[in-house]
Amino acid sequence: MNTVTAPLKGKTVIDLTTALAGPYATLLLAGLGARVIKVENPTRGGDSSRNNSPYVTEDGLSLRRTSDDDMSVSMMLRGRGKESITLNLKHPESRQVLFDLIGEADILVENYSAGVTKRLGIDYASVRHLNEKLVYTSISGFGAGPGNGDRKAMDTIVQALSGVMMTAGEPGQPPVRFGLPIGDLSAPLFAVIGTLAAVLQAEHTGEGQHVDVSMLGALTSMVACEPFDALESVGFPLRTGAYVPRLAPFGTFRAEDGYFAICAPTDQFAAGVLRAIDRPDLLDAEDFATRDARVANADRLHGLIAGWAAEKPLDEVLQALTREGAPAAPVRSTAEAVRDPQVVQRGEVVPLVHPKFGHFEGLYGSGVPVVFSASQTTLDVPAPHLGEHTDAVLGAIGYDAGRIEGLRAAGVL
Amino acid sequence: MNTVTAPLKGKTVIDLTTALAGPYATLLLAGLGARVIKVENPTRGGDSSRNNSPYVTEDGLSLRRTSDDDMSVSMMLRGRGKESITLNLKHPESRQVLFDLIGEADILVENYSAGVTKRLGIDYASVRHLNEKLVYTSISGFGAGPGNGDRKAMDTIVQALSGVMMTAGEPGQPPVRFGLPIGDLSAPLFAVIGTLAAVLQAEHTGEGQHVDVSMLGALTSMVACEPFDALESVGFPLRTGAYVPRLAPFGTFRAEDGYFAICAPTDQFAAGVLRAIDRPDLLDAEDFATRDARVANADRLHGLIAGWAAEKPLDEVLQALTREGAPAAPVRSTAEAVRDPQVVQRGEVVPLVHPKFGHFEGLYGSGVPVVFSASQTTLDVPAPHLGEHTDAVLGAIGYDAGRIEGLRAAGVL
Repeated sequence: MNTVTAPLKGKTVIDLTTALAGPYATLLLAGLGARVIKVENPTRGGDSSRNNSPYVTEDGLSLRRTSDDDMSVSMMLRGRGKESITLNLKHPESRQVLFDLIGEADILVENYSAGVTKRLGIDYASVRHLNEKLVYTSISGFGAGPGNGDRKAMDTIVQALSGVMMTAGEPGQPPVRFGLPIGDLSAPLFAVIGTLAAVLQAEHTGEGQHVDVSMLGALTSMVACEPFDALESVGFPLRTGAYVPRLAPFGTFRAEDGYFAICAPTDQFAAGVLRAIDRPDLLDAEDFATRDARVANADRLHGLIAGWAAEKPLDEVLQALTREGAPAAPVRSTAEAVRDPQVVQRGEVVPLVHPKFGHFEGLYGSGVPVVFSASQTTLDVPAPHLGEHTDAVLGAIGYDAGRIEGLRAAGVL
Repeated sequence: MNTVTAPLKGKTVIDLTTALAGPYATLLLAGLGARVIKVENPTRGGDSSRNNSPYVTEDGLSLRRTSDDDMSVSMMLRGRGKESITLNLKHPESRQVLFDLIGEADILVENYSAGVTKRLGIDYASVRHLNEKLVYTSISGFGAGPGNGDRKAMDTIVQALSGVMMTAGEPGQPPVRFGLPIGDLSAPLFAVIGTLAAVLQAEHTGEGQHVDVSMLGALTSMVACEPFDALESVGFPLRTGAYVPRLAPFGTFRAEDGYFAICAPTDQFAAGVLRAIDRPDLLDAEDFATRDARVANADRLHGLIAGWAAEKPLDEVLQALTREGAPAAPVRSTAEAVRDPQVVQRGEVVPLVHPKFGHFEGLYGSGVPVVFSASQTTLDVPAPHLGEHTDAVLGAIGYDAGRIEGLRAAGVL
C-alpha cells in the first residue's frame, strides 16, 4: 500500500547514545519511522558497539576486523535505520553544531552517566531554550539525580540489585544471571514510552520536557508487578526451580532429546495431561481430581510426567499433550526461536543485512514487535558506517563544504 | 506545581483486558494520565485477578476472602487508577453499550485469545466505523492471525518458545524458568509503545488503527537484540552460568552472608578488583594484566575472587570493591529491591493502598518508571471494586437510571 505511512514519520531524533540501552531506544524510534541522527565521537572510533567482536566480513563472521567495510554484528543490529555523523562533544566548537541540530529536532536521547551532559554543557537545562518543543530523554543506571553517575550500571549489576536474579532457581541455590540483558533492554522500552507520551503532550502544549529513565527503576518496577512478598508471606515460595507446585502440573520437563514446558493449572488442562501420559485412571483419583489435590501431590504428579517423557522423543511428547488439549511447548534455543517463521513473517525478528555484503544466513536482529494496520515499521535499512552522513546532515542545516572541512580539520567532526 | 499535567490527560481507554499482560498495559496508560474504563464480566466475578489468592483483609493478608471489602493483591496492583464497570459481552444487548462507550473513547485495549473479539462482534473491523480515530490494541499469545487463538499462551509457554530459558544456566543443564513473568510483562510494554505511536499518528491523520502485539513476538524480539548465534559461532558460548569468562572478572560470587555481582571487563576495573582482593602483586602479572590474559585465565581469576570473599561479610566485600572503583553490587532479594528508597522516591515502585484498609507494610507495586520534568505520573488511586463505576460511567454517556436498572436486571451489567 502506497498510502501507508509510519507513526513517527516527520520526527527527527538526535541520538547521543552508545552501547546497548540507549541505542535500542533509538532503534525502536527509527523502526517507528523517525529520522534518527546518530552522533558519534570520532576520536574513539564512534559508538563502542562498532568495536564489539564478532564482525561481518566479506567471508562471513570473524573475530577480528579485516577491512574498513567490515562491521560488528552489534552495530549491524543496533545501527539500523540511523544516519551517522561524527561530532566530538568534548571539543568546545562542537557545541554550536549540536545546538544547530537540536534546533531542527523533535527528540534527543542520551545515555551518558548521570551528570556528564551537564559537564559538557548539553544537559536539558542548557538546551531547552533552543527548541521549546524538544523532548530530551535520558537513560542512566540510577536516574538523573546528583551522585547517581558515580555508580557504574552494567546489566548484571542492575539485574543483581533489582531482585530479578532471585526469581529463578531454588531456595538456597545461587542467584541466576540471565544471559538476556534484561536490565539493558527494559529501560529503553520505558524510555520510548516516556518519549512518545511527552511528544504527544508537546503536540498539545507546544512544550517538550525532560524524560528521565533509570535502568534500576525500570527493571525493579517490573519485579514489583508481581506481589512476590505477599505470596511468600502466605506460603507460596518465590523460587521453585523448574516446577511451580502451586499450579501443578506446571513447569519444564525433559524428554529424550529436549525439554518442554507444561502449563496446566486448571481441571480441564490437568485432565489433558493425565490422558496424554496414559494415566486416564487418575482422572477421578482423589489425589489429582481437584486443583487443591494436585497442589498437595505436586511432586508425585510432576514425577509421573517426568517418568513418562524421559525416554520418548520430544515430538511424540508434544503431539500427545497437544492432542489432549494440554498447553505445552518445546523449550527452544535462541537460534530456533529467532527463526520461527511466524515471528519472522510478522517482522518481530528480521534478517540483518550488511550494507555491502548483504545477509548471511543465521544473522537475525530484533524488529519492532508491533503490527500496525495502517502504518509500517521498518528496520531493514542497514546500519551506517561511522560518519557516513556527516556532510549530508550538516549540509542540510546550512553548513557549506568549507565550514564542514574546517570543522573536520579542527577535530570537531 | 499546579500547572503540571499528565501526558495522556483527556484520553479515554476502554479496557477489555484480564489477567496480567493486558491489565499491565492499561495500568501504564492510567499511570500516564489516561482515564481507563475497565469492563468486567459480571457472571464470573470480573477479572480473574480478583480471585487470585492472597487477599488483603482488614487484618492483613489472607489466603481466603473474608468479606466483600477484601481485595486480591493482584487486583490492588493491576486495577489502580482504573474505573470498573460490569458488562457481559456475551449478552447480545451488551454490544450497544460497548459501542456507545467506544464512541467516546480514544483507545481500546483487549487481550482475548485471537479470534474471540470477532466471534463477539467487537473486533476492530466491527467497531472502527463507530469512531474513526479509535486506536484498537490487541495483545495475544501469537498475534491476531487466524488459528493463533488455538494455542494457549501462558507466560511459561512463551518463555519456553522464545529461547530466553536457554540464556541462563550452563550447557547441558536444564532450561531456566524465570519467576518474573517476562513474557507477560514485555508484550504490554510494546503494546503501550504501539498504542502511543498510533495515537500520535491519529492526531495528525484523524484516523486510528489496529495495533497487534504478540507475547511470543515481543519476547523473541528482545532475545534477538543480542546476536547470540553469531557469538556462539565464533566461540563465545551462550550459557556460562554465574560467570562470563569472556568479560572476566565478571559474574556473581558468594560472600559469607550473601551474594554479589562484579562487572569488571576493563583494565581499570579489573585492577580495582585485584587491589580489593589484596592481590596488588597480580596487577602486572602476565596472566592478568591484559583483557586477553584475564579471559584466558578466567577460571583462576574467578576462583581467587570466590576464595577471597567466601568467609567475609558481604558488607566488607562490597566496601573493599567500591573503595577500589570496581563495579559491584549485592544480589538483592525482590523484597529488598522493591523497598530501595531511591526507587520508591522516584515513584518507580509505589506502596499499594487498599481502598478501605489503607497500606500494609510490605505491599508494593509497580509505578511508571519514567520521571517527567513537566508531567506527573500517578498510580496512587486504589483499584475499584467490581462494577463500582457502572452507574457513573453509563450515566455520563446519557443512560438514565431506569435504563441502567433494566440492563442490570437483564444480566447485561
